[in-house]
Amino acid sequence: MSELRKDPTRGHWVLVRPAGEAPAAATDECPFCPGNESHTPPEIAVYRKDGSSPDGPGWSVRVVPEIDPYFLVESKVGREGVGLYDKVPPRGATELIIEAPEHELTPAGMDESRWEQVLWMYRDRLRDLKRDTAIRDILITRRYKKPGSRISHPYSRVVAVPVIFDDVRRQLIQCREYFEYKRRCVFCDIVRQEIADEVRVIRSSRHFVALAPYASRSPFEVWILPRQHACAYEQALTPDTVADLATLLRGHFKTLARMPGDPAFEMLLYTAPNQAARLLPGEWSTIAEDYHWHLEITPAPDRSSRIGGIHVNDLPPEEAARRLRDAWDA
Amino acid sequence: MSELRKDPTRGHWVLVRPAGEAPAAATDECPFCPGNESHTPPEIAVYRKDGSSPDGPGWSVRVVPEIDPYFLVESKVGREGVGLYDKVPPRGATELIIEAPEHELTPAGMDESRWEQVLWMYRDRLRDLKRDTAIRDILITRRYKKPGSRISHPYSRVVAVPVIFDDVRRQLIQCREYFEYKRRCVFCDIVRQEIADEVRVIRSSRHFVALAPYASRSPFEVWILPRQHACAYEQALTPDTVADLATLLRGHFKTLARMPGDPAFEMLLYTAPNQAARLLPGEWSTIAEDYHWHLEITPAPDRSSRIGGIHVNDLPPEEAARRLRDAWDA
Repeated sequence: MSELRKDPTRGHWVLVRPAGEAPAAATDECPFCPGNESHTPPEIAVYRKDGSSPDGPGWSVRVVPEIDPYFLVESKVGREGVGLYDKVPPRGATELIIEAPEHELTPAGMDESRWEQVLWMYRDRLRDLKRDTAIRDILITRRYKKPGSRISHPYSRVVAVPVIFDDVRRQLIQCREYFEYKRRCVFCDIVRQEIADEVRVIRSSRHFVALAPYASRSPFEVWILPRQHACAYEQALTPDTVADLATLLRGHFKTLARMPGDPAFEMLLYTAPNQAARLLPGEWSTIAEDYHWHLEITPAPDRSSRIGGIHVNDLPPEEAARRLRDAWDA
Repeated sequence: MSELRKDPTRGHWVLVRPAGEAPAAATDECPFCPGNESHTPPEIAVYRKDGSSPDGPGWSVRVVPEIDPYFLVESKVGREGVGLYDKVPPRGATELIIEAPEHELTPAGMDESRWEQVLWMYRDRLRDLKRDTAIRDILITRRYKKPGSRISHPYSRVVAVPVIFDDVRRQLIQCREYFEYKRRCVFCDIVRQEIADEVRVIRSSRHFVALAPYASRSPFEVWILPRQHACAYEQALTPDTVADLATLLRGHFKTLARMPGDPAFEMLLYTAPNQAARLLPGEWSTIAEDYHWHLEITPAPDRSSRIGGIHVNDLPPEEAARRLRDAWDA
């Protein structure tokens, strides 16, 4: 009985998802290792050797639904009012992209060809999910040393939702304001200024620049910006850019792994919301010109319960209020 | 050499504050206990017994500047461009409101009369700081079991800044949008609906309602909303409302302390930005009608480095980029 609820005073969405729904793990074995394919739901997409069987070994990248998904393809579509409040069923998808058969592989240990495969699979999943017009926004995240996680097998998470992520909405609004004033994409301007300034550039390549953003929220926050303007990752990739980006990611993660303490990080792929979704007239109409896909790599993500930028609260406020009322009078 | 930097793609402000500026503590003794007044800078405001001397014992609530302040009255005023970026000197104030002489007192242990004194001091500090037209916004926060804190003496923190806090700006925008459509304050509508609904109400009193908000971001998030519309806390208080609020706070913190694990929390006082500050024409012009002061009590705040809602980054991105460049090539 999960639902997305909108806060009318800030505009953010919260997934209220009562605890106790999660099925227990069937086994102690890693469900993502080759040979254990039956421990996951059937694969959604896969790169596998010719002749190997679906849901069997022989794959190099494999995508499965999260066993206890936050967002579901089966949920009904539609917004609903609750007095002045808004709620939406959790229509969408939560998928895991298993990045390699090897259980112990880390981002720093993945070579260029593996990164290329993962980057192509990101594209495939975005393209496929954006065919569903009930999905408005998709975020792909990759955590290294996820706090509290049991699974160490390397995977990225795809979260597709029927609303615009709060963080993305803020970017879209800010980028549009800049564009309305300047008639230029703010990210394109950042790329030009940073390359000229040099001081915050970590690495630049033919198609990308990796930099420490001017208003970094935490030490070693890094953005990877494509030099060429494009609002959507899944439309912009070419074999050439994928190879370039794979080299940059491999270099950066190898560098991070040599930093003191081999720091934890989260990588987020920001791409334009689903333009095939039913939008209001004029809503995000300049997105192709004012938004710019990019990657953000934030070290040491906090432990707050968020999935792809959406707060997840496993105690419905109605139940919290009941418990607090009871405790108050006790 | 701290500075506030604005992110042009999201609109948030970050305080870039190089590490290594903090003076070492002069002593192991608690600087906030009576008799140790000389270990703090001179008091800014105080409630003390008649005949007792400034910066000596005899006080019940005492306000001092933070020893290593994030924002400074002495900083110059003014915005500056850095290419397309914006920066502002950290003009403002960071003050600690020492809530009581007793070192071990907790929010749950404070009786109504102590809470009343603290609430009046909140008002005094807001009124005084808002005379400084370079200060645009002020947040008062009260953490219980602050992660990593050495000082357990009870205090609240006042953070006054030359910009609008990101979180407040989002509220202001959302509240204005609602007001423009409905010609009503969204918080007033929430108060009415929640009192009628009852399910999310924890306690209601003559002047306030304590409730679990509809889109609670975490379990046991609680808001205390005044029933009577007013945008600014410091203008709205009367002896009657202060007594009522003190009773509600005491009841709620005693309740929280009885919950499993005596949970950590942070209380935030949201009040209107400084309307005496130089605003742009029309900027927040409807604030008196569309904003509504209130308290939010969020359990288990995360450990991310924020002061009053502003990210604090002690590694300038220019230095982060240099270190990553060097490590990349190593």
